[in-house]
Amino acid sequence: MSHVVKKRKLDKSRQDRLYFDSYSDVTIHEEMIADHVRTNTYRTAILRNSELIRGKVVLDVGAGTGVLSIFCAQAGAKKVFAVEACSIAEQAAKIVKHNNMEDRVEVIRGTVETVDLPEKVEVIVSEWMGYALLHESMLNSVLYARDKWLKPGGVILPSKAELYIAPISDPVVEDRLHFWYTVKDQYGVDMSCMSDFARRCIMNSDITVNSVTVEDVLSHPARFAELDLCSVTVDELRAVKGRFRCESFGSAAVNAFCVYFTVTFPCPDKQALVLSTSPFKPETHWKQAVLYLDAPVEVVQDTPVTGEVSMYPSEESARHICIHVDYSIGEQKTQSKTFSIPDWSSEAQS
Amino acid sequence: MSHVVKKRKLDKSRQDRLYFDSYSDVTIHEEMIADHVRTNTYRTAILRNSELIRGKVVLDVGAGTGVLSIFCAQAGAKKVFAVEACSIAEQAAKIVKHNNMEDRVEVIRGTVETVDLPEKVEVIVSEWMGYALLHESMLNSVLYARDKWLKPGGVILPSKAELYIAPISDPVVEDRLHFWYTVKDQYGVDMSCMSDFARRCIMNSDITVNSVTVEDVLSHPARFAELDLCSVTVDELRAVKGRFRCESFGSAAVNAFCVYFTVTFPCPDKQALVLSTSPFKPETHWKQAVLYLDAPVEVVQDTPVTGEVSMYPSEESARHICIHVDYSIGEQKTQSKTFSIPDWSSEAQS
Repeated sequence: MSHVVKKRKLDKSRQDRLYFDSYSDVTIHEEMIADHVRTNTYRTAILRNSELIRGKVVLDVGAGTGVLSIFCAQAGAKKVFAVEACSIAEQAAKIVKHNNMEDRVEVIRGTVETVDLPEKVEVIVSEWMGYALLHESMLNSVLYARDKWLKPGGVILPSKAELYIAPISDPVVEDRLHFWYTVKDQYGVDMSCMSDFARRCIMNSDITVNSVTVEDVLSHPARFAELDLCSVTVDELRAVKGRFRCESFGSAAVNAFCVYFTVTFPCPDKQALVLSTSPFKPETHWKQAVLYLDAPVEVVQDTPVTGEVSMYPSEESARHICIHVDYSIGEQKTQSKTFSIPDWSSEAQS
Repeated sequence: MSHVVKKRKLDKSRQDRLYFDSYSDVTIHEEMIADHVRTNTYRTAILRNSELIRGKVVLDVGAGTGVLSIFCAQAGAKKVFAVEACSIAEQAAKIVKHNNMEDRVEVIRGTVETVDLPEKVEVIVSEWMGYALLHESMLNSVLYARDKWLKPGGVILPSKAELYIAPISDPVVEDRLHFWYTVKDQYGVDMSCMSDFARRCIMNSDITVNSVTVEDVLSHPARFAELDLCSVTVDELRAVKGRFRCESFGSAAVNAFCVYFTVTFPCPDKQALVLSTSPFKPETHWKQAVLYLDAPVEVVQDTPVTGEVSMYPSEESARHICIHVDYSIGEQKTQSKTFSIPDWSSEAQS
C-alpha cells in the first residue's frame, strides 16, 4: 500500500477543475444529505424563515443536488436560482422536475462568478463550509454573489460563522507510539526505537480531519473568530485570526488542538438556529480539524492554554487552508506551528 | 469535502519517486507489522526453514523496517542483505543495531536493480505482494534479484503465488442505492431519481479494496492463475491470466467479483505454509479486491459463473494493475469489464 502526500503548485484552472470535478461523484452528496445535523438544520432554518422567503427570489450558491433550493421553494420562494458549477447540476435538474418544482426552481450550471441571473435576489442560501470552516474557500463565491446579486437589505442563510479552538489529548497517538514497544513480545524483534520516528510522522503539520471524543477535550473551547456574512469581505478572508485563552479541566497531556466551527441562522421572533460541529454536539461529516503538537505537554487543573490562531489560504492552492497557531501552555514560552490540509482532500478519493 | 480520481500519464522517475516516498511514512509500516497474519506467517515460515537458512547468505528485497531480515538472522543466516530503496532504510539500520544484529544484517539503501552486493545469495526473502497481488508490481524487482543474485538451486520465500476469484453479493451497494429512496421520508424531498446516477458512480471500473464478508461470497472461489516464483519471468507478468468456473451456492444477486491471492512457503518435511488473503480466512491488510459489475445478475443454486481474468500493468503507470474480466453468468452471454486501481492508492494518503 502506498501513502504519499505531495505538495505542488497547481495552476488555477487545474485547481478549479479538480475542485469542481470532485463533487460529481455520488459519495460526497450521499454523505452530505445523510448528515442529518447538516441537512435538518438547514431545512428547519429555511422553513422557520418562511416569512422572509415567501414570495421572494432566492439564490442557492453551490446547489449540489438542489435540496436546499427545494426547501426554499417549499418555504414559499417565488423563484430559486440553483447555481451549480459541476455536473451534479444535471441530477439537480432531474430532482427538481421529479418534485414538480420546475416553475419555481431553476438549475443553472456555471460558477456563480460567471452566471448571469435575470434579476437580483432577496435571499442567498448556501452550504459553503469546508473542513475547518474555510478549507476549499467556497465562502469567497458566496461573498461574490452577495456583492453582485443580493438586493440591499437582503438575507444570507446562514448569516454568521464562528471558529473555536480547544486543547485535546488524543489517546490514539499514544497508542500508536506504544505499538512499537509491543513488537518484541509479539515477534521477538525489538522495534521500540521506531517510536521517535513514529512521533515525527504522526505529529506532523497536516491538518487531520477526525472525530474528537468529548472525554479527550481538555477545556471549554474558546471562540477565536467570528465572521458576519453580511459584511465580511474577501480581503478579510485572506487572514482570519484571533486570540484564545482556555483553562485545563484537570491533569492531562495536551498533544493537539481541535478546531471547529458553528454557523448561525437568524430566526425572526425565535432563538437563532445554530449548526454546530463541536465535539460536544452530535457528529457531522465535518468532524473536527485536529492539529498535533510536536510533543505532548503536561497540564494540571486550571493551567492556562493561550495563544493566537491565524487561518489563511495556502500558497500552493488558494482553496487549501493553512492554520498557524502561536500557543503557550502554562509557564512554557510561546511556540508556533503551521498546519495545512494535505493534498488528498482535494485530489484523491479516500 | 472533495473526492477526485485523476488519471494521468506519469513519467517513470516520478512514478518511482512517488512509489518509494510512499513507504517513508510510519503508518504503512505500522499497518504491515501489526498485520499478524502477514508478519507471523513470514516469521513461522522463516524459522521453520532454518535448516535451509542456517549459515547461508540471504537477500531481503524491499526490506522496509528490516523485520524479515532479522527473522532470517534469528533462523541462523550467516549474512542478510536488507535492500531498501526508501528512507525507511535508516530506521531499519537503527532497528538492526538495536537488536545487536549489525554483524549479520547489512541494510543497503538502494533499488535492488542498482545495488551491488559483494556476493551471490542462497536465499531470497521478500514481502512484495500488493493489492490484488500484483498492484505496484514489486514482484518484477524480486525476479530481477533472482536472476542476478540468486545462486542456482537457491530458495525464494515465498515460492508460489496463486490468484482466486469468486462472485459476491455486496449488500452495501444495495443499501447505498436504497438510501436515495429514504430521503423523502426524512426531509420531504423525493430524491429517488438519484439512484441510477448512484449506481453508475458506485459500480464503476475502480478496483475497490474492501473486506468481503464470508456470507457475501456466493460460491467456492476458483483459482485462475499460479505463479512459480522460481521460474516465472518478467515478461509473463505482463499478462497474468486464466479461466475460472464457479457454481452459485444458492439464490442471490451477483453484483461484484472478489479477487484475492495466497502465497506459499515451502517447509521441508512439513506441510507447506500458506499466507492467505481469502475472505474465508482471518483478515489481512490486503483485504480483497472488489470488482463491481454494471448491474446485479440474479443466480440460483448451481448457476454457473464462468469466465477469464487477465491482469496486466496499466498504460498510465506500470506499477498500477488493471484487471480485465470476461464473464458469463448462467445463460447470459459473455460480458466484459476492465478495472483499475484509482490513483489515490499511490499518490494520496487515505
